[in-house]
This record gives sequence, structure tokens and C-alpha cells, in this order.
Amino acid sequence: MDHTRSHTSAVTTGAAGSRAADTHAADTHATDTRAAAAGTSQIGDVPVVADPDAGSVGLVKARHVTVARPPRALALEGGQSLGPITVAYETYGTLNERRDNAVLVSHALSGDAHVAGRHKPDDKRLGWWDMLIGPGKALDTERYFVICSNALGGCNGTTGPASIDPATGERFGTDFPIITIADMVNVQALLLDKLGIPKLLATIGGSMGGMKALQFAVAHPERAHAVIAIATAAQQPTKAIAFNEAGRQAIMADPEWHGGAYYGQKTPRRGLSVARMIGHITYLSDAAMREKFGRRLQDLHDYSFTFSADFEVESYLRHQGLAFTERFDANSYLYITRAMDYFDLARGKASLAEALRPAQARFLVMSFSSDGLHPPYQLKQIVSALRATHKHVSYYEVQSDFGHDSFLLERFKMEGVISAFLASSAATFTPLAASGAVAGGAV
Amino acid sequence: MDHTRSHTSAVTTGAAGSRAADTHAADTHATDTRAAAAGTSQIGDVPVVADPDAGSVGLVKARHVTVARPPRALALEGGQSLGPITVAYETYGTLNERRDNAVLVSHALSGDAHVAGRHKPDDKRLGWWDMLIGPGKALDTERYFVICSNALGGCNGTTGPASIDPATGERFGTDFPIITIADMVNVQALLLDKLGIPKLLATIGGSMGGMKALQFAVAHPERAHAVIAIATAAQQPTKAIAFNEAGRQAIMADPEWHGGAYYGQKTPRRGLSVARMIGHITYLSDAAMREKFGRRLQDLHDYSFTFSADFEVESYLRHQGLAFTERFDANSYLYITRAMDYFDLARGKASLAEALRPAQARFLVMSFSSDGLHPPYQLKQIVSALRATHKHVSYYEVQSDFGHDSFLLERFKMEGVISAFLASSAATFTPLAASGAVAGGAV
Repeated sequence: MDHTRSHTSAVTTGAAGSRAADTHAADTHATDTRAAAAGTSQIGDVPVVADPDAGSVGLVKARHVTVARPPRALALEGGQSLGPITVAYETYGTLNERRDNAVLVSHALSGDAHVAGRHKPDDKRLGWWDMLIGPGKALDTERYFVICSNALGGCNGTTGPASIDPATGERFGTDFPIITIADMVNVQALLLDKLGIPKLLATIGGSMGGMKALQFAVAHPERAHAVIAIATAAQQPTKAIAFNEAGRQAIMADPEWHGGAYYGQKTPRRGLSVARMIGHITYLSDAAMREKFGRRLQDLHDYSFTFSADFEVESYLRHQGLAFTERFDANSYLYITRAMDYFDLARGKASLAEALRPAQARFLVMSFSSDGLHPPYQLKQIVSALRATHKHVSYYEVQSDFGHDSFLLERFKMEGVISAFLASSAATFTPLAASGAVAGGAV
Repeated sequence: MDHTRSHTSAVTTGAAGSRAADTHAADTHATDTRAAAAGTSQIGDVPVVADPDAGSVGLVKARHVTVARPPRALALEGGQSLGPITVAYETYGTLNERRDNAVLVSHALSGDAHVAGRHKPDDKRLGWWDMLIGPGKALDTERYFVICSNALGGCNGTTGPASIDPATGERFGTDFPIITIADMVNVQALLLDKLGIPKLLATIGGSMGGMKALQFAVAHPERAHAVIAIATAAQQPTKAIAFNEAGRQAIMADPEWHGGAYYGQKTPRRGLSVARMIGHITYLSDAAMREKFGRRLQDLHDYSFTFSADFEVESYLRHQGLAFTERFDANSYLYITRAMDYFDLARGKASLAEALRPAQARFLVMSFSSDGLHPPYQLKQIVSALRATHKHVSYYEVQSDFGHDSFLLERFKMEGVISAFLASSAATFTPLAASGAVAGGAV
């Protein structure tokens, strides 16, 4: 696990926002690697060249920027302040001259800034939403400038509990302040300032990413023309809090957790692994579980009559759990699940409709029929609240058996709707009125 | 935690089955304590004596019997053999002379033999299905002789991993053989032999108890006139295996587990607690969670911005998890969940219908609309398979918001159906043809 990586060494400096944006474009199309990866097959007498990278953004790389430098540290919702904050992000496509084609993608609990393409030509792992992002895809990088940043509190380049606390020179651990979805979104806004983007064409995300998209719409209403909220909720539902709490307790029960001060030593792998197993189960529908695993045995003809992973589903979960510990920090898991559990757009407001009133965006809200974590009724609550305040809102319920994970899988059921909504949003985009409203530009 | 209790010291000996059964009746009605506990209130001028024990079986006590003494040790499904086996059980009501009024109740994962009444006059905790068992209740103890035993592998009086292994004089721990639902049911049959009951009027249970009822019907077809299977499945569904596996991994990840050899030392409380938290969440429906907890805070006006149990649901789960460790053995949790996961009535058969073909019983199958662990479709599969082989089967789907836990809560929606089915079963009872079919009688 890369806990030793410095979150500050890779910070880019110097370029003004627009130039920085221009240079990103160079990263996003590596056509030479496409040709190298192309395979050849045959239909009848006709050789067919299948290009596995068709529609791909190609080779990309992560960038880093520093925001909220003291004395302008970020005031957190919980009352503390935090800064400087390093933000890891990637971009795809080109920011146009009018700067009106930027689409901000927000990731879910375990995601990161790497949302499309490959980091290396032989990378087997594509960005986590590659199916939707690239030339000709739903988020068409020939038209849109797509940005994705690692969330505050994360462990993939953005400041989080594994980062060095400048006050002590030690890793934060649980001295890291409790952060919220609102804090994450405020960091996104600071990143947009750095990139010189006064107003987004759209902010889009699924699950926790959807929470961020909704929060952005109310916290920075003048900066989002459109919001796409997928497989999410305006407040974390009780059952999701419950499963997250079980996961947190599993991590904290691991003696290797050491109250969060495990960096440089053994990590609480077993606790984090159990937390991930719990999470994984909630992402799959009953039907998807049956379909994918049923009661099939793993390399066995009969029960072993032991506690081994006889069933494929056991083997799968154990593998997923352990693999997760190689790429994710246990403390980040605690902080980010806490942020999700605290998320309640209507907190301190008379109603959800009241909470959404400041939003100026047009909304697309999308649910999945088999989503057990955020069932369609939770998305419909958002739609009802938006309609109550006469917002522009489209609602789309996707029929899918994949459960909560549908938003990561159902490319063909999602892309037409998203693509059309983005196109109509682009056609109605109005620039931010006051040019001085955004500090923007200089890194 | 009472890991030091000897499972063998309380074994009853001597009485022949019928006499033993007669003596149980003395335990089951303690009318003197009822009067003592009666409270008085007033409606207008009329004093109303409310009897809190109305419909209660009153004071009861657990009994123990030993079966499968070598050389007649029990051959287990996994290939090993086990014996002697102590069985803890309770009975309520009186076995009639024809011995045709016995109803066997099977408990779920965390249940025990104490299914109705109180052990002491001031017991706040009633038996786990007290709502259905007693004079005038669904399992009317004025008519039926109700039996409940702690399952093989359990930790409440019946032989399990915390018991002393006669071969070593030490506690079994993980040397305890893997046991299955079939093994549990075979122990039930041996208990019935001891009690001198050749054939049950009915075997009934919810969740794992329902699995035992179904298994009894095919393993001992001549010994069950009726089967009531509630909130269960003919095979453990994939999702339930997955959650159980997460729980087992939480226990095994606890360093206090020590490969199962923790008796006499600290116990793996934190791991078992997480396992129980996971289980608890799966027993409640989405709606029940919202209704019961929502996002209410526990003794707080606002978020604490810490990892404390801010939400009521967090506090509840932590409490449930820890309280469970006071009454349940972690190894039993491993063994019993494994038995459930291995349960597949159709295993080695061409179909579920084929598997159910030997059954001679009439069936009542009952599901709950909001049960997320065993949704109605799983109960309907049982019904379809029974109908395919022309069995007598009634199906009843209860509308309830309580999720899987409904079978422990929905007294008034269940009792009429169960009561009527038992009455019609009693009216059609035919005694076991060959009197020599049951070894029965001598303890």
C-alpha cells in the first residue's frame, strides 16, 4: 500500500488556469498506442480490425494542485479549518475558449480521479467510468472538457488522513478533521478556480458522487448549469448508515488500527477487508448475486465441510476485501463513510424542497430498478422536491438487475439519456453573469 | 459469558419417555405466580384486573437429555460421527395419551430452547416466541404439547463447539465437526425418541427453523404430519451466504478468536459483535429502519463531528452487537451460519420437487412481503415444488413492513392462519403405522 507517497511532491505549479487546461488536452489522446493495441479478426473473407481503444481517451495522467493555502485555509462544516489541501485530478478533452464545456465528474466511496483511459499503455485497469467518457461516448470528450478529482479525505492523491499534517510533520491519522460532502464540494470549487472555470456545464456523479453533484448545486448555485444525480439520495438512508457503521466497527476492532496511527506499520487489513465485503454485498442486487454466483462451488465437487471458501461468492468476497486493502486507506474509509452518513441536504432546513430552492441548475435524476442501497423512491424524493420549487428536472428509472452497481455497468441504458441531457444543457448554457465572481486563474 | 457451564451435568436420566413427558407438564403452568404478577387499573368506576401473564405458559425450565451415546454415535452428513450429544429442551402443555398432539418448534440462528414463558417469576425476558405459544395462542398449550430444543452446535445447553470433547477432556473449539441442518434434525428425531413421540402433529419454524422443519419432512417423512415453514428457503440464498461469510471473517479476524481456542480467556467479542451487527441489519426492512430510527440523533442536538455513535441506529447496533456477545458463543456462530449456508434441500437431487417427493406431511408455507433475507419468491419456490409433486400445501403471504424479523413480531397476522392449520392437521392426523418404527422410550 502506498502510504509513503507524498501528497505534495507532485503538485503542479505555475500555469494559469487556461494554459493548464490546454496542456491537459495533450494527455488525453494517444492515438499511437491505439494502433499498437489493435487486434485483427475475420468475418468471412473480410479481415476486421477491432480497435480495443475505440472511444477511449487513451493515455492520461493524474495532476495535482494545491488549494486553501493558509491564511486562506478551508473552513470546514464541522468548525475546524484545513489547508493547504492538495487535490489530485485528471482531465479529458479540451476546455473551449468560452469555457462553457466543462463537466465535473464526482466519484463514489472507493473511487478516485482516474475516471477514464489508461495511465500506462499496458494498464489493464481502465478509469472507473471509462464506459461513459471518451470520444463519442456519453460524456463526449470531443465536445466536453471532463474533470474528475479525488475527494477530500481520500487516499489517491488528495489530502486525507494519510497525508502529512503540516502542523506536526506527522501523518494526520485520526487527527484529520471530520469532513463532509459540503467540504468535498467546496474543494471542488477551489479546483475549478485554479482551472479557470467560472461555471460548469454540468456536475455528474453516482452514489456519493451524486450527493456531491446535488450539494454543488445548492452550495455553488451560480456555478452549475446542469446536475446529473445517479443512484443516490438527498440524505444518506438509515440502512446505509447502518452498514457503514458495521464496516467502521470492523476497522476499529482491528488491533492493527491502533486508533488510526498505523502508518509505517502493519495496516488494519482484516478490518478493512470485512468493511469492503459488507459494502460489496450492498452494491449487488439479490438477482445479480444469484446470477453471478448462485450456490456454485469454487474448484470443488462437493462441500469441504470446513470453514474454507467453498462457495464462489465467499471466494469472491474474500478476494475483493483483500484486494481493496492494497489500494485503499482504512482511515479514509472511516472518514468518507462518515461524510456520507452525515449527508442530509435538508439538514437545518424546513424541507428538502426548501434546501434545493437556491439551486439554479437543470437536473437529470436517474435511478435503477434493482438498487437496494438507493432504491428509486429515494431518487423520486429529490425529483418531487425539485418539482415543488419549479425546477427543471428530468427523471429516468433504468430497468436493471445489477443493483446499486448498475451505474458502473449499464452503459447502453445510460448513455443516450445522459448524452441528450448534456446536449440540451449545452444549448441552454448561460455564462456566469459577474466575471469577478470567481477568484480563478493563478495556481 | 457462560462458557464454563458444563453441558453434561444437567442431563436427566431414568424416566421412560412417556413418564418424562408427563412430568414436563408440571413445569408449564404456574398459576400462583400469575396471580402475584397481576396488576390492577381502572376504567371509569370499574377496576380492571389486567393479568400480564394471561395466555402465558408461566414458569418453565430447561431440561437436558443425552442421545447418540457411543457406540450409537450420530453419523454426521460431513462424514464424521459425534456422540454423546446433550440436548437442551423445554416443553409446554401436556402430551396426550394418543401422543398425537406434539408440535416441535425450531429456532433460528441465535435462538434457544426457551421459546415461551419465564424461567423465573421476575424474568423480564420471555421465551423468544412467547407471542405464539401459550393457552389460547396459535400454538395452544391447552391442546398441544409444544417442544423446543436448542440446535446441535448451539451454545445454550445442546452440545456445540464450547462443549467438552470427551476424547480430550478439552473444549471442542474448531475440533468440533462441521454440522448441517440435516444433523440438527437427526438430533431432534433422537430427542423425540427419548420423549416417546413416534410422530409429530407438526414441526414449525422460521428462518433457520423453517429449514429444519423442511428438512425434517424429507429426512423423517413418517414422523411429521404437518410442516409449517416460515420466512425461510429450501436453499440458503447467495446473499445470505455472503453476509454470513462477512460475519465469519469478522470473527476470525479478531485476534482473540485464537483459531477458536479462546475458552477460559478473552473471547472474540468485537468480531462477534460486528457479525451480529451485520446480521441485525439484514433482519430489518428498509422501511422498518426508517420508521424505527430514521436519521435521529442519540442524545444530541447536532452532529458531534467525531466517530461516536451520533445516530440512534449506530447506538442501537453497537448495543445489539455487544449484548449478543454476552449470550452467544462465537464458535457457535461460525458453525451454525455454516450449517445454514450448506443447506440445500435439492443438493444431489434432480430438482427441489424431487427432493421433496418423500415428504408425507401437509405444508403451510408463510412469507412476509418485506422480508429482504427470504423474500416471498423463495417461499413460493417451495410451494411450486410441493405442488409439482401433488403435496397438500397452503401458502400465505403476510403484508408486513418489519422485514425478516416479521416472523418474531407479527403475532396477529400469523396466529389465525397457524391456529387453523394446526386444527385441521389435528383433525386429519394418522398415527405412525408400524409401532416398531421408533426406537423410542428408554432414556
